[in-house]
Amino acid sequence: MGSGDAPAVVALGGGHGLSASLSALRLMSDRLTAIVTVADDGGSSGRLREELGVLPPGDLRMALAALCDDSEWGRTWRDLLQHRFTSTGDLDQHAVGNLLIVALWELLDDPVEGLDWVGRLLGARGRVLPMASVPLSIEADVVRDGELTTIVGQSAVGSTASRVESIRLIPSDPPAHPQAVEAVMAADWVVLGPGSWFSSVMPHLLVPELAEALVTSKARVCLTLNLASETDETHGMTTVEHLRALARHAPDLHVDAVVADPLAVDDPDLLLAEVEQMGATLLMRQVRRGDGTPRHDALRLAAAYRDVFDNFLGDVGTRSR
Amino acid sequence: MGSGDAPAVVALGGGHGLSASLSALRLMSDRLTAIVTVADDGGSSGRLREELGVLPPGDLRMALAALCDDSEWGRTWRDLLQHRFTSTGDLDQHAVGNLLIVALWELLDDPVEGLDWVGRLLGARGRVLPMASVPLSIEADVVRDGELTTIVGQSAVGSTASRVESIRLIPSDPPAHPQAVEAVMAADWVVLGPGSWFSSVMPHLLVPELAEALVTSKARVCLTLNLASETDETHGMTTVEHLRALARHAPDLHVDAVVADPLAVDDPDLLLAEVEQMGATLLMRQVRRGDGTPRHDALRLAAAYRDVFDNFLGDVGTRSR
Repeated sequence: MGSGDAPAVVALGGGHGLSASLSALRLMSDRLTAIVTVADDGGSSGRLREELGVLPPGDLRMALAALCDDSEWGRTWRDLLQHRFTSTGDLDQHAVGNLLIVALWELLDDPVEGLDWVGRLLGARGRVLPMASVPLSIEADVVRDGELTTIVGQSAVGSTASRVESIRLIPSDPPAHPQAVEAVMAADWVVLGPGSWFSSVMPHLLVPELAEALVTSKARVCLTLNLASETDETHGMTTVEHLRALARHAPDLHVDAVVADPLAVDDPDLLLAEVEQMGATLLMRQVRRGDGTPRHDALRLAAAYRDVFDNFLGDVGTRSR
Repeated sequence: MGSGDAPAVVALGGGHGLSASLSALRLMSDRLTAIVTVADDGGSSGRLREELGVLPPGDLRMALAALCDDSEWGRTWRDLLQHRFTSTGDLDQHAVGNLLIVALWELLDDPVEGLDWVGRLLGARGRVLPMASVPLSIEADVVRDGELTTIVGQSAVGSTASRVESIRLIPSDPPAHPQAVEAVMAADWVVLGPGSWFSSVMPHLLVPELAEALVTSKARVCLTLNLASETDETHGMTTVEHLRALARHAPDLHVDAVVADPLAVDDPDLLLAEVEQMGATLLMRQVRRGDGTPRHDALRLAAAYRDVFDNFLGDVGTRSR
């Protein structure tokens, strides 16, 4: 554990999954950094990326919104940033926050400074950084009709009806954002997931400098499993296969803890055996909402993270691999 | 003079002209309200009005920018609001502040509340209100090749090569915004101009409730003349003809003071005679910048307004018409 009372936490991911982990983590740490995928090529982000040649802002916007201060000021600007235009014209489906972020980038000529200004506007509890300094594409090998095929683009991967075997980044060795690497090196905990397993959670592990930092850092790693293992990009994958897919893409990464909701685990015994074989601890507990939707409950997930983090408090400096 | 040390001032206009009066007035009053034309149909504002069915936001945005707090925070958000996208795509030439304002309108469903939120963001010194609750069009009778012709739309009027004789609003009796009427009624001074004489300064006088408030209010009226009497929409018009055109459109309006820059006055004696015949005071003084551009200098204009306002201080309650 670093200085201060709260652990320094870095959350990796993108989209709604990262919003879920951040909504929980903001309740327990004011030393929070989100490192966000920049491979989106669909919707408002995809159009902005195409039209203005910028990083896709959508996942960054959602992360900032999740960190916003719970005051009238914070909530109003958050709602504005999340607002989408609806029309039959040019602005249809553009999220206001996406436009604001790319305009700040043009004005300040620095992606991180622009995000910091939006963070200040929202009174965000924590910082949001892009995982790479350049826009990325995701390429996936998928199995379709028994044959291995390649599909390109995060939105194509995220909505494929075929089973994803592996993913690659284009370019394959993008520069990590230096401040993202620093945040990982200085963290007490790194939280991966929940989120689209291949297109939001794993891309970070394929950015060479970020992957190296994750392995080199003294930070412990906590994996948050999804509430539905069956998503568009993970057809027919068991819970254990999720862990194995991640391990295939980051063989050197040591996972310290896995958080799973019992209702989303197909075979608890198999999962426990797999987690123990990885040298990690499994926390199996309801972290979903009570309303039947497959969404994380921020308070329950925060309490789960606290239990996981506290459980390792006595082990400082004795971490073994 | 109302309560407090500074006079309560209402500035009427639109575009760059209103920015000029506001940039000066903000230096001398913290009880400042801008009432802004909502007839723009060109550029970014025209496209937003067309696409989303909202008030044209551009003149409101510029007024807010002119009132922004002179801190790093205020200047950064002002620069962002004034920033325009440049691309070969959908966003080309849209001003970020226009997008922000219309999004706040959609979110809050109240034009004034939306503008107040932008004002808070900028730390604006004063308030910005639309002159009417509905988008307006301007129709002008112009003389072309010796014949009277009608042209429609603020951008057409503002850039016509023909001489404008008179203007009308469509609809002809738009509802004034109630808070705009209240501000005029509570003001010590109302400042008209500078600005595009027909398309920015005069439209206010054609909104019935606003015109009535201007005549009924105890507020004194100060007219700021333009630095170039020859503009697209005022070809061949002398300084005196500017005053007469205004009087034709608002015969009941009593003007108390006129501020003019000597370099922009074609015939000082004629102007003085005309102003005295109107029962007003003329302040003729350099209020333009020293760099040769036909733009007002905020400090010089502020000092001129202070002289005008102070000159009437002893006359409270003795105003005659």
